[in-house]
Amino acid sequence: MPENEFVWGVRVYYEDTDAAGVVYYANYLKFMERARTEWLRVLGMDQTTMRDECGVVFAVRQAEISYLKPARFDDYLQVRTGIKRLTAARIRFSQQIVRDCLLAKSEVEIVCVNAMTFKPVKIPDHILQLLEKITWI
Amino acid sequence: MPENEFVWGVRVYYEDTDAAGVVYYANYLKFMERARTEWLRVLGMDQTTMRDECGVVFAVRQAEISYLKPARFDDYLQVRTGIKRLTAARIRFSQQIVRDCLLAKSEVEIVCVNAMTFKPVKIPDHILQLLEKITWI
Amino acid sequence: MPENEFVWGVRVYYEDTDAAGVVYYANYLKFMERARTEWLRVLGMDQTTMRDECGVVFAVRQAEISYLKPARFDDYLQVRTGIKRLTAARIRFSQQIVRDCLLAKSEVEIVCVNAMTFKPVKIPDHILQLLEKITWI
Amino acid sequence: MPENEFVWGVRVYYEDTDAAGVVYYANYLKFMERARTEWLRVLGMDQTTMRDECGVVFAVRQAEISYLKPARFDDYLQVRTGIKRLTAARIRFSQQIVRDCLLAKSEVEIVCVNAMTFKPVKIPDHILQLLEKITWI
Repeated sequence: MPENEFVWGVRVYYEDTDAAGVVYYANYLKFMERARTEWLRVLGMDQTTMRDECGVVFAVRQAEISYLKPARFDDYLQVRTGIKRLTAARIRFSQQIVRDCLLAKSEVEIVCVNAMTFKPVKIPDHILQLLEKITWI
Repeated sequence: MPENEFVWGVRVYYEDTDAAGVVYYANYLKFMERARTEWLRVLGMDQTTMRDECGVVFAVRQAEISYLKPARFDDYLQVRTGIKRLTAARIRFSQQIVRDCLLAKSEVEIVCVNAMTFKPVKIPDHILQLLEKITWI
Repeated sequence: MPENEFVWGVRVYYEDTDAAGVVYYANYLKFMERARTEWLRVLGMDQTTMRDECGVVFAVRQAEISYLKPARFDDYLQVRTGIKRLTAARIRFSQQIVRDCLLAKSEVEIVCVNAMTFKPVKIPDHILQLLEKITWI
Repeated sequence: MPENEFVWGVRVYYEDTDAAGVVYYANYLKFMERARTEWLRVLGMDQTTMRDECGVVFAVRQAEISYLKPARFDDYLQVRTGIKRLTAARIRFSQQIVRDCLLAKSEVEIVCVNAMTFKPVKIPDHILQLLEKITWI
């Protein structure tokens, strides 16, 4: 695993599945957000403080996801997360969900926004510095 | 249908079901909240205004639910809602989910709380008056 | 509204929102699926019969979604749905979520799969004929 | 911690919260099911095998939950789970969600049902024996 990639494990519960017997398509986006959140935490970023002290939150601006094979109840999945592009206001993540094989892959673009107006703003400096330490994919 | 009962229709989509082929147990509580919300709207209550102008929100304090028969994908359900008890800070709803037969029944107790601290407060007078117009079950 | 477009209304409930005060990003995909499901129903397609008698289900193969402005609690949204491309096994939908302005837009590609193996199969003829009646966008 | 109690950790993500800034009331039931599922796994029970080989699944028959204090984004919660009553077809769990203090407590009754008809059936013997090893609360 390269240093610029973060891996987070996710167990599939009944809540995640649907009547077709597989994980419901929107729920893969939940798994992907959990992995992004945990990576930010590992890097030392506290999103509650970011909102309460800097008045900003991260919002998803764009998401693309391809579903290759279905995940099923009780599967243990790995979410692999890297950063594809970083600018002053945006982070573009590249993510994969893997079991014995690749199940889904996505690109998700996050934008830093004012917590009240949801207008884009610059990522706070101390957070940008944390992100810049990572070597991009 | 008695005058003190409100009926709201809900369609079951894939998002609501799980790999056992039926509606996931926690999701019946979503259906029940949709019905309570729509009843409050019909009575003339605007929950956004209530929060922004009175600084209060309704929070669930207690819920009891019995699952009798499963709802399935594509079912069209009726949620029947009545008020069982009303006090200065609390509303206790009695609710049923019905298809061709009774599928689930619940009692849900809502408490009016300060939107920041979540401490119980009195229901604003103009809202209490709207609720008191209903004849209880 | 052109004839080849279907519009479905969706109310935003607490279940759909998150602590940032807006609709959670994955939940827009639920709204979009509800609209696709209702359109298929209006066209005369019964997905339960399709699964039980033809042994096939529709699965999402790919989704792209852009989030332009946030939807909030109690908003009443319109989901506009059109078909962008139709082949023997796939349907590519173009969808928009609109309030007073455009909030989100997506392209979602659905593939017809064997309900057990999730391998792609041809869309059953009588369903393909229903879909072909629509004039594409 | 007594031997007959199982503790499972749960992190609160944006997906779990609502616009009131706290965990949405139905989602506590998801956390509680995750904990029950993990306990059954630790005891050596495989729910997929149970369904595929014995043709039975566990369904929730009744749930009671009291909400004492709200959980918020990024909280790390502990779900404490015990068995309150065990019969040939039913398991009644007692569960608590704890942070620095008790946030919610529930009793959830699970019934073993035929996976197709959802009619109650006896819990398979080898599973009942696993459950009987636990000393009840």
